[in-house]
This record gives sequence, structure tokens and C-alpha cells, in this order.
Amino acid sequence: MAAHFTVIKKDLQTKARLGRLITAHGEVETPCFMPVGTQGTVKAILPRDLKEMGCQILLGNTYHLLLRPGHELVREMGGLHKFMGWDRPILTDSGGYQVFSLGAMRKITDEGAQFQSHLDGSSHLLTPERVVAIQEALGSDIAMVLDECIPAAAARDYVYDSTERTVRWARRSLRARGKPDQLMFGIIQGGLFEDLRRRCVEDMAQLPFEGFAVGGLGVGESETELNAIGGFTAGLLPADRPRYLMGVGRPQDIVNGVRAGFDMFDCVVPTRNARNGTLYTWAGKLNIKRAEFAADPRPLDEACGCYCCANFSRAYLRHLYMSGEILSAQLNSLHNLYFYQRLMDKCREAIRVGQAERWPQISGSTDAA
Amino acid sequence: MAAHFTVIKKDLQTKARLGRLITAHGEVETPCFMPVGTQGTVKAILPRDLKEMGCQILLGNTYHLLLRPGHELVREMGGLHKFMGWDRPILTDSGGYQVFSLGAMRKITDEGAQFQSHLDGSSHLLTPERVVAIQEALGSDIAMVLDECIPAAAARDYVYDSTERTVRWARRSLRARGKPDQLMFGIIQGGLFEDLRRRCVEDMAQLPFEGFAVGGLGVGESETELNAIGGFTAGLLPADRPRYLMGVGRPQDIVNGVRAGFDMFDCVVPTRNARNGTLYTWAGKLNIKRAEFAADPRPLDEACGCYCCANFSRAYLRHLYMSGEILSAQLNSLHNLYFYQRLMDKCREAIRVGQAERWPQISGSTDAA
Repeated sequence: MAAHFTVIKKDLQTKARLGRLITAHGEVETPCFMPVGTQGTVKAILPRDLKEMGCQILLGNTYHLLLRPGHELVREMGGLHKFMGWDRPILTDSGGYQVFSLGAMRKITDEGAQFQSHLDGSSHLLTPERVVAIQEALGSDIAMVLDECIPAAAARDYVYDSTERTVRWARRSLRARGKPDQLMFGIIQGGLFEDLRRRCVEDMAQLPFEGFAVGGLGVGESETELNAIGGFTAGLLPADRPRYLMGVGRPQDIVNGVRAGFDMFDCVVPTRNARNGTLYTWAGKLNIKRAEFAADPRPLDEACGCYCCANFSRAYLRHLYMSGEILSAQLNSLHNLYFYQRLMDKCREAIRVGQAERWPQISGSTDAA
Repeated sequence: MAAHFTVIKKDLQTKARLGRLITAHGEVETPCFMPVGTQGTVKAILPRDLKEMGCQILLGNTYHLLLRPGHELVREMGGLHKFMGWDRPILTDSGGYQVFSLGAMRKITDEGAQFQSHLDGSSHLLTPERVVAIQEALGSDIAMVLDECIPAAAARDYVYDSTERTVRWARRSLRARGKPDQLMFGIIQGGLFEDLRRRCVEDMAQLPFEGFAVGGLGVGESETELNAIGGFTAGLLPADRPRYLMGVGRPQDIVNGVRAGFDMFDCVVPTRNARNGTLYTWAGKLNIKRAEFAADPRPLDEACGCYCCANFSRAYLRHLYMSGEILSAQLNSLHNLYFYQRLMDKCREAIRVGQAERWPQISGSTDAA
């Protein structure tokens, strides 16, 4: 078993496992959810409040930090942890997902991905080596390799070629490593083709990564496809290293992922939905802008222990939303992230006690997010 | 001496006084600054953080709450304190200032002020009686009477007539009172004319208000005029009741006001400036968007103990501002309000110890805010 990751308990009824991941900035109990701190901040939330809700690890976006304020500036300021006032673990992505989301603004070759900044149109080249160097400058605890995130609708030939290139890039990433205390995860692509996923895992699992992520999901495929390919791929990955389902997802997707054997998750859904007024409760999602809440004195969720639910009514939250107040984004984001942290608590507890009835029950959250 | 207000100590070198104001939601040590919670929230700040920085009392805006979500809804939800999650004192203004700021959208008669909502153009009438009823519905600890806030440039005849009407409205307000535990403050107008200010005080001081405010300042007059008329009027007001300098101001204005004998202040400057990136430090104001801060690892203010200064660099705060992040407004507002609270601490301490050299020294903050 790898020194940085320990499977503490395996669930008998599912493929879920309880684990402990050790990083340069401390331990993470898995399965865990990583709130997304795109531009060096989890939108609308103080780091202090992330800690208070039990958040163990954040995700930072290499693409955004590269463009603004620049990874060299972040390094000069003492690294991303110090820069953003967060002393617990940080995982940084490779920037690949953002670059490939740019569509016409990027060009991919074996060397890497050329793209134009969404901020000022300036031209940048991301190579596997440069992505490693950037993440070393940021000083994250876990670096992701550069990969190509393939659209769900991609044809088999394209998926095959792209996935081969992702594997070649992964090898180059390992050779470029220079920061011994930074873990590095490989990324499995292969689209919606089981044989290509298997082939990719067979290649990648031979490489000395400290963990493996499954990419290319949560990008337009159906829920059935997500669960099928996610579950299939998780089952192929080495059991002694953490498994990260990238960019997923809605609460039910995460529970499904945990049950399939994934250990780590990230998604912008809780914070983006919060800013749009879509809020999670244990009785289902609700949209706070609806007129029915205008005079509703109840908290968002009677079953929730967050600061928002302890102090404010649905009527107040609706008022803040309708008035365009910044506090609306703050309280809604606090609540949704707290919900996600409790969701992970419940998953870990279900595995710990080994009782099927302890798995969290999600109401209505399989609706489109 | 009035039961709700005690002057604890008078300064010997200035007209400043240290006092204690007792309200239905607790005591306030004066001189005090009231952050402005326009729409039922101090913009970008959790009530918890207001408490943590030592904020004793907030100001709520009757005009805004009347239009959205409506005072009857706030009453139904248990009053403004419960609605906005704030259990310390609240002072509500009368709405007069906002109505008179509307210019062409309002019409004033002896009965009251007719105006059109800035939100939807709907027509509303504010009378002295209605303003009392609205504030009773909101359940604030201190209600302000309806007055006409006169522009600094107004001609003497207009000021005379308007101020007479403000006094008549004040008498009607007292007759309309129905909430024994709500204090009510009268408002002194009179423009920049000392004799009209004196005449207004002579009329108002005979009325059984629990405090007096000086209005019509901070509305376009010069700093010299502000200090002259403010100081002049403060000296005329009854010594046994709190004196509130409405809508003022910048840090130096507040220190001047305290030294002239005012006990209470409010202003949107610290929060509005925060959102614009203008931040107060004990070495002067700075604008965080300036390029010189891009790689500045120092806190905003080495001398500040706020959460923002304890955890973040100028470089990070600039990055947040340039990136349009909500956290920028949060951290900047936290800092500026903390600065204002410490400013009031220093004023109170200077009076308490009676040493002239203890008065806070403001650097550069007399610039236009």
C-alpha cells in the first residue's frame, strides 16, 4: 500500500472505501469533496468559514491562476496556500479542462495545447512540462497532469488518438517532476468506450502516480453513461491509490461515485447554484427566488446546522436574492457547501458503520443541476 | 438626566463626551458609529462578523425596506432584528433622505412626501404618521422622524419654510407614537444658516424626544461648513440626550464631530469605498487596484488586527479586486468597518483617559471620499 494513502475500511455491500490521504499540508479523510477555488478563492466564502464547515481540501484552477495573477507572482507571494490564506491541502488541476473548453481559441499538437486567454486574447502554450512547473510554482499538494478532456460526443477514432496522447503526456509529466512533496495524479480518458478506458488504465496504472483521476465525465454525457463509465473505470484502477472523479457532481452523482469506489470529487455546482438561488436541502432542491418563499419564516432546511439555517428565514434569503445583495451569494454558498460537506460525512459514516440504510438519501437532486 | 442616556464623562479639552445609551436591544457605548444596512443587510458582511468587530448598533433604511420586502412582511417575520439576524440595537431612518434624493420623482406638501419607487415607479406617500407606523412595524430600537433633508445650496426662504414644516412634522410624529420601548429622535434642519439652526433647536428641544439628530449635512457642503454648522448646532442641543450627526462621514469628519459633542454617526462611506477598492489604514487611504500593490506581500495595514489584515496580502486583495471576486467586497468591507470601529474605540479612549494626544490621528482621509 502506498505510504500517502491508506484504505481504512472497505464497504462490504458496495465498492466504497474509507481512506486517509496524507499530503504536505495535512491529512484528508476520504471520500472527500473539494470546493472549487477558481481564481484563488472559493467564491463568496472566507477561508475561515470553509474550515468551520469541515472542508478538508480545496481545488485551485491552474488555467485561471496562470493568466491572473500569474503563477510566478503566486510563488513570489509564498505559494497558493499563503496567497489565499488556506493552510490545508490544495489540489490544482492541469488547466486542460479550461483550455479544451475554449473551443476555437485553442490548437492541440503533440507538444501541448496552444490557446488564447479569455481575458485579453494573449497567446499561451501549455505543455505537460510547463503544467508541472506551474503547479510547482503554485505549491499545491496534489498536481494533475495535462490531459485532453474529450467531449462526450467525440468519435471513437478521435478518442483513441487523444487518449494515446494523454498517456504520452502523462509520461512526460512524471519526467518533469521536481517537487518531492507534491503528489501527482494521472488522468484516465477514453470517452464513453469501455475498451479505450481499459486500455488507458492499463497504460497509466504502470506509471508511478500517487493517485488516478477519471476525466472526461460530467461533460455532457447522460447520467446513465456517467454512472456506467465511472463505475466501470473505478473498478479497473489500482486499489491502493486514491481515485478521483473529476468535475462530478450533483449530490446523487457523488453518492453513486462513492459507492463505485471513488475517493475524491470536485464540482462548481454547489457554489454556482448558490449564486443562482438554487439551494440543496435534505428534502430536495429549492429555488429561493420563487414567490412561495416570500413570507416563509422557516429556515432553508430544518435539518441543517449551518450558520445560514441557524439564523435566517427563507423569506430573508429570498429578499436578499431579489435585492441583488452580496450577502445572498455569501449565505447561499455557505449553505450549499455545508450541505456537500455533510453529504460526505454521511457517506463516510455509512462506510464506517457498514450499514446500507445509513447512505444519504438524496431527494430530487438528480434533476438537471 | 434622561433614563435611557447617561453621560459618563465629559472631556475637558473638547466638547466630547463618553456616554451610554440604553435601548430595547441593549446598551450602546457612545460615541458610536452605525454601519448602514440599507436593504436589511450591511452589504457583504455577515452579522456574526459585525459582532466580532465590536459593532454595537446598525442603521436600517426605512425607504428601502418599505419598498422591498415591505414593512408589513418584516413585521410578520418577527421584526427587522429577527429578519436580518441581528439582536443588537437598530436605528431606522425616516426615509426622508432617500425620498428627497429622488428629485423630480417626489412632491412635497404639508401632509407629507409623495414619491415614486425607484424600483417599479409605484406611487407612495410618506407622512410623519406613516413613517412612525412603518418604523414600529420594523421594530427598530430608535426611530427617526420624517424631515426634509435640504440641499446645501438651498436659498434661505426655502430653508426657513422647510425647517418650519420639519418641526410641524416632528410634533405630528410624537403624537403618532405607539411603541413605548422604541426611542424617537427629532431632527434639526436649518441648512447652513446659524440662526435657522438655532430656531429649529429651540423649537425641537421643547419636544419630548429621546435624542436629537442634525440633518442636512454631508449633502454637498464644504468641509469647513460641515464642521462649522455641525459644531454650532451640537453646542445648542440638550446635553442630557444623545446627539446624532446624520450621514457623517469620513474618519476625520467623525473625529471632528465627536470633539464637537456628537455621540452617534452613520455613513455608507466605509462599505461603499470598500467595494470600490478604497481602503482605510492608519497611514492613510489607499486604492487597492493600483499596480504598485500587485506584488506587495504586506497586509493592508500593519497596525490593523482585522481578519483581512491578519490573513491576506495587498497582492491578494488586489488580485481579488481585479478579478471581480465577491470575496474582494467581503474582505474590503470587513477591513473598512473594523477600521471605523477602532476609530470609535480610540475616540472613546481619548475621552476616557482625558489625554489630548490620545485622539486618533487620521492620515490623508480628509481627501474627498
